[in-house]
Amino acid sequence: MENGHGGDIYAYENGECITDFSTNINPFGTPPEVVAAVVSGAQSLARYPDWSCRKLREALAKHIGCLAQDVICGNGAAELIFSTVSAKKPKTALLVAPCFAEYEAALVAAGADIRYHMLLPEQDFLLTSDFEKALTADLDMVFLCVPNNPTGVVLEKERLTAIADICEKNNILCVLDECFNDFLENPKTHSLLDRITGRNHLIILKSFTKMYALAGLRLGYAVSCNHALLEEIYRQRQPWAVSSLAQRAGLAALSQTAFVEQSRAVLLAERVFLEQGLLALGFRVFAGDGNFLLFYGAQGWKERLLERGFLIRDCGNYRGLENGYYRIGVRTHDENVRLLNAMRLILEEGR
Amino acid sequence: MENGHGGDIYAYENGECITDFSTNINPFGTPPEVVAAVVSGAQSLARYPDWSCRKLREALAKHIGCLAQDVICGNGAAELIFSTVSAKKPKTALLVAPCFAEYEAALVAAGADIRYHMLLPEQDFLLTSDFEKALTADLDMVFLCVPNNPTGVVLEKERLTAIADICEKNNILCVLDECFNDFLENPKTHSLLDRITGRNHLIILKSFTKMYALAGLRLGYAVSCNHALLEEIYRQRQPWAVSSLAQRAGLAALSQTAFVEQSRAVLLAERVFLEQGLLALGFRVFAGDGNFLLFYGAQGWKERLLERGFLIRDCGNYRGLENGYYRIGVRTHDENVRLLNAMRLILEEGR
Repeated sequence: MENGHGGDIYAYENGECITDFSTNINPFGTPPEVVAAVVSGAQSLARYPDWSCRKLREALAKHIGCLAQDVICGNGAAELIFSTVSAKKPKTALLVAPCFAEYEAALVAAGADIRYHMLLPEQDFLLTSDFEKALTADLDMVFLCVPNNPTGVVLEKERLTAIADICEKNNILCVLDECFNDFLENPKTHSLLDRITGRNHLIILKSFTKMYALAGLRLGYAVSCNHALLEEIYRQRQPWAVSSLAQRAGLAALSQTAFVEQSRAVLLAERVFLEQGLLALGFRVFAGDGNFLLFYGAQGWKERLLERGFLIRDCGNYRGLENGYYRIGVRTHDENVRLLNAMRLILEEGR
Repeated sequence: MENGHGGDIYAYENGECITDFSTNINPFGTPPEVVAAVVSGAQSLARYPDWSCRKLREALAKHIGCLAQDVICGNGAAELIFSTVSAKKPKTALLVAPCFAEYEAALVAAGADIRYHMLLPEQDFLLTSDFEKALTADLDMVFLCVPNNPTGVVLEKERLTAIADICEKNNILCVLDECFNDFLENPKTHSLLDRITGRNHLIILKSFTKMYALAGLRLGYAVSCNHALLEEIYRQRQPWAVSSLAQRAGLAALSQTAFVEQSRAVLLAERVFLEQGLLALGFRVFAGDGNFLLFYGAQGWKERLLERGFLIRDCGNYRGLENGYYRIGVRTHDENVRLLNAMRLILEEGR
């Protein structure tokens, strides 16, 4: 079996020496205070984790401005995708394509019928108003990712609200994945976290993986005012889904305000730098608003860059994309310069 | 919601000061080499874990004497209970009662019909030959825990083999939970780990939680020669179910041979000590062969011991048990002495 995602450096010899542009992880790494929390927690592994993540959920509630009962934590946001689908048991679901592959994987595992709303390169992968028309009452569930992975396209709060309202009216559970929201210039204007009240058909996914560079530890959460749904998610999985180390790390991460702001500022500037560099090299670029960008070139870029020690995400296996599409996560200035140089050299050699 | 299991010290004020007899965790704690592996891994959390746990599965295969492809790792054995049920999608399943509650929880979550084979106190909770007769071809799945939690009852290898053969013949997936096997005096004589070959309807669950005191980290695994089943388990869950720290800890744990042997020897002696102590205090004791024992007394023992700083497992919520049954995990000699003293004092005060 293969997993097809970015970040699988383990599949390569000397994988640990690769500069990994294939994931969308904050290149500034895990904040030292978060590492320290994990190290200190390593002394208490004999104890079961708090199955309900009481302290972390209370801290998240304060951070978000909601009730602790509105929050459920997971073994990464990816786990919550699967357990939310298990809880909802949808017969029919709507997906945008291209989009993060695990929505489809979870729906297939649950035996759901899937409809696809295709995003088109000739429309810059924008979500047209046809999407709202596709939210018909015969659907049970819809996934939406803002900014969308891998296209980076965002939606405004008012549009998101309108979509959530249609879902509410038509009894469609709307799973809004805001895992990359932290990297946006104005996160709140593209979020519904402050509009969950009264929306029983809305659940929002968030992750610690990306901004706090905690991919290896597994921590995500979901927010919804629908407590019956959250209780069903608990019933669909083991009690101790979230390790005690992840809970400690999450608590430590929430106080890293300066780290988040600095990361956001640098990565926004670096995304523009990478975008300009790729455009100058002649690629078609879909830069979006996140900490990653999608570009289109000839085939073979993954292999050619791997020879030079860079791993990028070949998006040929995304439904709705084809060979020649690649995604790169924005990294530090030095790494971005090295990647662009390597790509220029490859292009020059090819001439 | 409540979880009803032992180890939920977080539900109590000053929970961290409680001596926890309510779980079955090795009281000698996490081996220092394993803690060191976790601490060192805390520096590499930005990377996604290896989704297929290549190194750990290879090490486990060598440890067990099977193929790496026979092994799947999980976010604790409890996660594998749920994902195995999701993969099998049983219509009808058989459970022994009393038994570990998460088998039933996973089956209920999947909407399976459950039959119960009741173990009776008047038969010392032994598994009578009626069990084999209950393994009828209309079943899809059966769970068996050896030694059984909470009764400690073991089965011999030949009996286990006969049960597995009936399951093979009748197309019943047999989930054999060997999570407490490491604590038995002769682990191999109560295990089918060396008999998986050719048995497509057998999957064995193992945990790092108990022997290596890693409850907070979440690491378990399953072993089966049925690779199609294992691939279906992968499909039923997120790719990154097992954290990189858990994978590192597991690798370090497998070399702790002396730790395992010493723990086993001490805990076997201490189980006898606790059993004798409880018998001398007038309790009915079901000591079994594991690192825990079940006893029957009047009600209220959990509350009375909690006042004195000891948490024990009230088994009144186990299907097939009633109020008055309690389980205690075997701990260090000093802790066991203190528990017995506290119980003696409570009994004397009651007179």
